[in-house]
Amino acid sequence: MAGRRSDARQKMVSAARELFREQGYHATALSDVVQRSEAPRGSVYFHFPGGKAELAAEAAELHTREQVANIDRAAADARTPADLVRAYLDLARAALVASDYRQGCAVAPLVIESADLGEVSARSFTAIITALTGHFTTLGLDQANARTLADAVVAGAEGALITARALRSTSPFDAVQAVFAR
Amino acid sequence: MAGRRSDARQKMVSAARELFREQGYHATALSDVVQRSEAPRGSVYFHFPGGKAELAAEAAELHTREQVANIDRAAADARTPADLVRAYLDLARAALVASDYRQGCAVAPLVIESADLGEVSARSFTAIITALTGHFTTLGLDQANARTLADAVVAGAEGALITARALRSTSPFDAVQAVFAR
Repeated sequence: MAGRRSDARQKMVSAARELFREQGYHATALSDVVQRSEAPRGSVYFHFPGGKAELAAEAAELHTREQVANIDRAAADARTPADLVRAYLDLARAALVASDYRQGCAVAPLVIESADLGEVSARSFTAIITALTGHFTTLGLDQANARTLADAVVAGAEGALITARALRSTSPFDAVQAVFAR
Repeated sequence: MAGRRSDARQKMVSAARELFREQGYHATALSDVVQRSEAPRGSVYFHFPGGKAELAAEAAELHTREQVANIDRAAADARTPADLVRAYLDLARAALVASDYRQGCAVAPLVIESADLGEVSARSFTAIITALTGHFTTLGLDQANARTLADAVVAGAEGALITARALRSTSPFDAVQAVFAR
């Protein structure tokens, strides 16, 4: 029973993340999350007494955990910092293209739409940048250069997710990749 | 009378742009726009029969016109493509810092929050990228490299606006600048 309960909860977090990526935070109603996750109506406040803000915090955490896991996997295959930069940008690009330019970052909408969720988005980006920084040092960069490269590649991916989505083209990803590869 | 009418209209577009930059598209109610612009209640549908979507299209156009004017001014002072890259990133950074990390891009929320405004945001980013590309060719790059650099710097600025805002730090701008300056 506990297992099924937490399964429903997890499905709601996952559905919320998907909806935030597609249409942002404010346009996503709790009823949309219930519908997409096929959760029983009324269960959302049982699982998330803090409502949409709590759901957003958990969706951002899920997104960040997955991003960090992807980074860790890519780093295991990388021989140079440039390999990891390329892999990180490719992951973002592949997710956007696979969704036919419909799904962007799950955290960016929180930054743009809700000052109240500032701590949530700061925590997410910090975790992603920290993971990349760690791997860049393992791959040979000193701490300062590793942090700079991590800051820059996360900004590059976030921006490319926006302009590539608007233009329905991967050219911003190709361009960012070309600048990092110089 | 016509002058005053169009003045009120312009104030509403300007207020809408500011609100989109601060809190995004969906969180901005038409009543917020009326209040911030000190326009007479009820006048918004007179000036914008298409409602918020029409206001968003005009706000994006205003934002784009200003961006292109800023780019043209910066290009007049630039001796190299790198000068213009630096100036463009500095403009985005300065606007974010001047607003105490409260105002991001006015177009990004439309991409993230409203698929219906896809043409509006595509037109905006295309105009900005085209302006930069033109100046980069004047400054000596061939067309393909100019377009790549323009695509990359716009993505870099858009992404840095998001992560710098989340982290309340200019370090993403410094990092993006460092990568372009390599």
